[in-house]
Amino acid sequence: MSGAGALMNGPVIVRNIARADQDIVGQLADAGVATVHEAMGRKGLLGTEIRPIQRGARIAGSAITVLSHPGDNLMIHAAVEVCRPGDILVVTTTSPSTDGMFGELLATSLRAQGVIGLVIEAGVRDVAELNEMGFPVWSKAISAQGTVKATAGSVNVPIVCAGMSIRPGDVIVADDDGVARVPHERAAWALEQSKARVAREATVRAALRSGELGLDIYGLRAKLDELGARFIDAPDDESS
Amino acid sequence: MSGAGALMNGPVIVRNIARADQDIVGQLADAGVATVHEAMGRKGLLGTEIRPIQRGARIAGSAITVLSHPGDNLMIHAAVEVCRPGDILVVTTTSPSTDGMFGELLATSLRAQGVIGLVIEAGVRDVAELNEMGFPVWSKAISAQGTVKATAGSVNVPIVCAGMSIRPGDVIVADDDGVARVPHERAAWALEQSKARVAREATVRAALRSGELGLDIYGLRAKLDELGARFIDAPDDESS
Amino acid sequence: MSGAGALMNGPVIVRNIARADQDIVGQLADAGVATVHEAMGRKGLLGTEIRPIQRGARIAGSAITVLSHPGDNLMIHAAVEVCRPGDILVVTTTSPSTDGMFGELLATSLRAQGVIGLVIEAGVRDVAELNEMGFPVWSKAISAQGTVKATAGSVNVPIVCAGMSIRPGDVIVADDDGVARVPHERAAWALEQSKARVAREATVRAALRSGELGLDIYGLRAKLDELGARFIDAPDDESS
Amino acid sequence: MSGAGALMNGPVIVRNIARADQDIVGQLADAGVATVHEAMGRKGLLGTEIRPIQRGARIAGSAITVLSHPGDNLMIHAAVEVCRPGDILVVTTTSPSTDGMFGELLATSLRAQGVIGLVIEAGVRDVAELNEMGFPVWSKAISAQGTVKATAGSVNVPIVCAGMSIRPGDVIVADDDGVARVPHERAAWALEQSKARVAREATVRAALRSGELGLDIYGLRAKLDELGARFIDAPDDESS
Amino acid sequence: MSGAGALMNGPVIVRNIARADQDIVGQLADAGVATVHEAMGRKGLLGTEIRPIQRGARIAGSAITVLSHPGDNLMIHAAVEVCRPGDILVVTTTSPSTDGMFGELLATSLRAQGVIGLVIEAGVRDVAELNEMGFPVWSKAISAQGTVKATAGSVNVPIVCAGMSIRPGDVIVADDDGVARVPHERAAWALEQSKARVAREATVRAALRSGELGLDIYGLRAKLDELGARFIDAPDDESS
Amino acid sequence: MSGAGALMNGPVIVRNIARADQDIVGQLADAGVATVHEAMGRKGLLGTEIRPIQRGARIAGSAITVLSHPGDNLMIHAAVEVCRPGDILVVTTTSPSTDGMFGELLATSLRAQGVIGLVIEAGVRDVAELNEMGFPVWSKAISAQGTVKATAGSVNVPIVCAGMSIRPGDVIVADDDGVARVPHERAAWALEQSKARVAREATVRAALRSGELGLDIYGLRAKLDELGARFIDAPDDESS
Repeated sequence: MSGAGALMNGPVIVRNIARADQDIVGQLADAGVATVHEAMGRKGLLGTEIRPIQRGARIAGSAITVLSHPGDNLMIHAAVEVCRPGDILVVTTTSPSTDGMFGELLATSLRAQGVIGLVIEAGVRDVAELNEMGFPVWSKAISAQGTVKATAGSVNVPIVCAGMSIRPGDVIVADDDGVARVPHERAAWALEQSKARVAREATVRAALRSGELGLDIYGLRAKLDELGARFIDAPDDESS
Repeated sequence: MSGAGALMNGPVIVRNIARADQDIVGQLADAGVATVHEAMGRKGLLGTEIRPIQRGARIAGSAITVLSHPGDNLMIHAAVEVCRPGDILVVTTTSPSTDGMFGELLATSLRAQGVIGLVIEAGVRDVAELNEMGFPVWSKAISAQGTVKATAGSVNVPIVCAGMSIRPGDVIVADDDGVARVPHERAAWALEQSKARVAREATVRAALRSGELGLDIYGLRAKLDELGARFIDAPDDESS
Repeated sequence: MSGAGALMNGPVIVRNIARADQDIVGQLADAGVATVHEAMGRKGLLGTEIRPIQRGARIAGSAITVLSHPGDNLMIHAAVEVCRPGDILVVTTTSPSTDGMFGELLATSLRAQGVIGLVIEAGVRDVAELNEMGFPVWSKAISAQGTVKATAGSVNVPIVCAGMSIRPGDVIVADDDGVARVPHERAAWALEQSKARVAREATVRAALRSGELGLDIYGLRAKLDELGARFIDAPDDESS
Repeated sequence: MSGAGALMNGPVIVRNIARADQDIVGQLADAGVATVHEAMGRKGLLGTEIRPIQRGARIAGSAITVLSHPGDNLMIHAAVEVCRPGDILVVTTTSPSTDGMFGELLATSLRAQGVIGLVIEAGVRDVAELNEMGFPVWSKAISAQGTVKATAGSVNVPIVCAGMSIRPGDVIVADDDGVARVPHERAAWALEQSKARVAREATVRAALRSGELGLDIYGLRAKLDELGARFIDAPDDESS
Repeated sequence: MSGAGALMNGPVIVRNIARADQDIVGQLADAGVATVHEAMGRKGLLGTEIRPIQRGARIAGSAITVLSHPGDNLMIHAAVEVCRPGDILVVTTTSPSTDGMFGELLATSLRAQGVIGLVIEAGVRDVAELNEMGFPVWSKAISAQGTVKATAGSVNVPIVCAGMSIRPGDVIVADDDGVARVPHERAAWALEQSKARVAREATVRAALRSGELGLDIYGLRAKLDELGARFIDAPDDESS
Repeated sequence: MSGAGALMNGPVIVRNIARADQDIVGQLADAGVATVHEAMGRKGLLGTEIRPIQRGARIAGSAITVLSHPGDNLMIHAAVEVCRPGDILVVTTTSPSTDGMFGELLATSLRAQGVIGLVIEAGVRDVAELNEMGFPVWSKAISAQGTVKATAGSVNVPIVCAGMSIRPGDVIVADDDGVARVPHERAAWALEQSKARVAREATVRAALRSGELGLDIYGLRAKLDELGARFIDAPDDESS
């Protein structure tokens, strides 16, 4: 959760960051978290403790990273200024916290800047209002606990959020399955891989639906055999 | 979770308790958990492990407190007799438990007495039926585990529930963000503070919606400056 | 989570298992988890860490048990072949894992074989798609984490899933309250007990709804008295 | 973890508190946590998440209570001034935190004031040094995470620590089994009860050592019989 | 944690159980948990939540199984009567509990019957005294929380403890690494396998100590190659 | 826990990495985790879930990073070949695991190569033997669970271990307080800062020992005043 190389030279708010092409980002949203993760070679997932507060949202955007002191949301306010339309705010704290650092007022502010969602390794509040607004959030906790504005952190420095390294501008993909990160310079490659996977899966799906087995489609019978796994008719066979 | 000063003189069920004015209680429900918590100076929240089993409920009522042995719901039955319309049952156990101490039958009984909801630092069951009935519950777990009726506890003694001290008759506010407690003798004050906060937030919300920044509205630029947080154009600046 | 007596003689996939009568199984679904658990003498529940990914599903079926290596879903593919209509797949791993071993493609395959649901002490992914398909799942985690197919396990051996022993063919009942297991040879008995309980509860429900108290219906006043629990008028009484 | 009624009128540091008789406190240390807890009617235990960082310490003292903002140890420094010889510092935070709010320097300061130990629902660091000093600590976590001094809290107000209500001056008993609290005005009573229990246990211990069974000493055979628990010779009996 | 098939016909205490040969059991203690687990094909481990309260103990014995109601230690007292020298008490509860169901008095009683240790999926207390006595315990929690004697359970029925099926008389092996279970009828086979493994490891250990690599000893270079893992000189190579 | 940028081009084992000056590394060990963390501006700590399996070890060395599949220790074997004297092995898995991937045999092999310790976000076994060898380990779990050698990972790629980014060759400092990471190119700077801090603390320690208060030494009275925290004589003052 702590900032990787952050604060080396004191707290900073970085205004300009590299972002991936917005059209590619949009298509990564369509692919979804599981596909993008698989397509990149099973990489990029944030930990399962980050859960959506709503059902059915599926977004992708460029990460504005925020590293905050626990119990303090000063740097979220600082981050708003450097956001652009299509961005996703990604917040972590320097040590574990479940405090409700974010609520409906900050969502209103982010939406006014064009920000499309929040990923936070801490708590959020006003979940009824956030759902009513249709502002999607993935968080570690739901908590009404208020926070102070007393200690500095940094914005747009590399962070670790829920066990995943995220640099400013990296692509964040989030849906009901969780959150994934794509290095911004690999976005095009990730999309290409994702499309290929989607195509392959369509074929497999059709076969499975018609009753074919994964054992045959993926050629797993030989694997089972190689590993010594035997099909037997009944448990009685085992003891013989 | 254990009863603060409870059972000093053996298990008791207290019939009469002080309650806050019902009209004030109703208005505290409208304010909601986050507002009431902030209005009281960021106090009164139960821990985040207590979650609603439904979406969208927002209630407030007077606490009937129950201290039970783990795996035993005898005292919930005892509590029903001393409930009045508008009350909320608040249950904890003398040691941690996730057992399903409460279900649709007890909800039916509570509703018949006018009780409007349950907060429980343990488990509940029959969640489909409870949702169908529209009986709102905030609990630590969902569990079908049945319980016995073999060991005494107390009703309407001071308890600690999910890390918060609760006295009989204290106001409980509960919504999608969790649960808060207002000391019953401070209910009028908490409402006044809450209304003031709601009014202030309306102004801030309008400003944020129009694109103004929290940095400016709350005067946080000076704070960032005082803390040495610098706006820089790009990460390259940092290493120079 | 580990397989009880599994793998004693190496990994096996058992084709034929004893199942309970399908008509009885269907009626156990109607009874639901809490009732079946109580009817069996408060037995059979899986741990509360297993939660539904949907709301409102209520199913029962015969268990096809799967014991997998963590991070490896090879044996789920092997299990599909031995499933029959009305079965429920019950998956655990040899050590704790939250990986997304199961998703929409495997659900498509299971549905093609007539399998009606999944219980898994690990993770699942594609939850939006699974909900859209109406394929019900009870799992320990939601995770997009992909898995390999490299290590053997067993199918239709006795396992422990979420703290409960489950043998192939045992009846699995699952709803919003969680998951329960009925030994397949006790299914008829469990149903009979469940029906008796449902009948008893109908009477109690009516009485409670009319305002009668559980204290009186269950005869608990004598119990409270025996345990020394006293009704008192006000807390002041206590210190006297 | 949050302060019960604290901060109602803003943050305060209370200088003078009621304490129990020091001689009684010392004897409660000898009795130990389990005995004192049982003697008070199974009350007063802090949660099991509070663990000693050393083995073999057994202390009792008067509580100086501290309510801190998470990630901030300002109020521990404020508390030192109001401590007296024989006191134990009891620290919690307004929301959950594992930060290392306390280390060897603060222990040096506390020892200079005669404080004999620390109970903290957060983290500590310098555990090697603390053990070398022989300064006993019971904490929720071990963490080197440093903290700031930016936000006010209170000293010597009622708090909830690890689920237990603690008022300033209450007696804290701590040993390898955990931590218990005795209301300061009940210290003499608690000691009397503890001594009676110790005496009773000596008799029971001698009987058990000589091979007598608890079943007979406590008269539990009748209880088992009443509950329908049957002694049978072999599992075969069960199915007959 | 719940009893597998227990209580089907009401609570029972079974007097006579099958045990493994005591000489074999003793040698399994020498082999230790990791070796026995590996020797049986990586089976038999209880979950990692079960930890020793002491360091350096290494024991093996026949399981006397206890299934208790949470917060109730009545059945531990009942179990003492059916223990024999060399047995290990294995206790679980019908739902999760951390209560201190066991302490120095019960250890005194067990020792008087020749019982050599305790494995418990719940809490213990008097850990200082237990360590002083040299009575080894593996538990889920340390807690002084006292328990009642009000609800029946069973003794010497099959249980699930920390995720592992355990039948009365199964061999329990426990050391600093945790706890393993050997089916009593497989004890001789497990010992034979363990001895073979110990012998193989001695050869490997000598080779590793002399600087040989596991890569070569186990022939893993080919495996790495097959899996596409490449040795490269420096990270720069990767991007080329 | 997953590898940051790892496996982009398939699994690799990198032979040559940049390391910090060994003399500096040794002095960082003397400074210890808390001091180094503070000296770097409160950065670099791994999460508190990583705990030592021994007491009193204090080491520092260059990180050899390992990214493994859960339940698979193949890459630890691959890593041994690229270790040099003074290195510390730092292991994580691509998804959460507690399996005992490491034991006495691997420690023997590492020691033969001059490796001085292990940090692992997973489990270890043979803790008695490791302690006897004096081979220090910091791990997330103790588990005898054996692992396979079937799936590739990478060695000496950037990883995230317990929430902290670690690159090959970074300095790892570990003691009873946990584990910290120093970027290898900042080792000299971190040491300089650490020494300055140690010197400052010596002065403070002497003052505290003589009875001076942190309030005065750090000038915190003005801060308390600014924050509105008031010293009052007794709680009665509060309500006036």
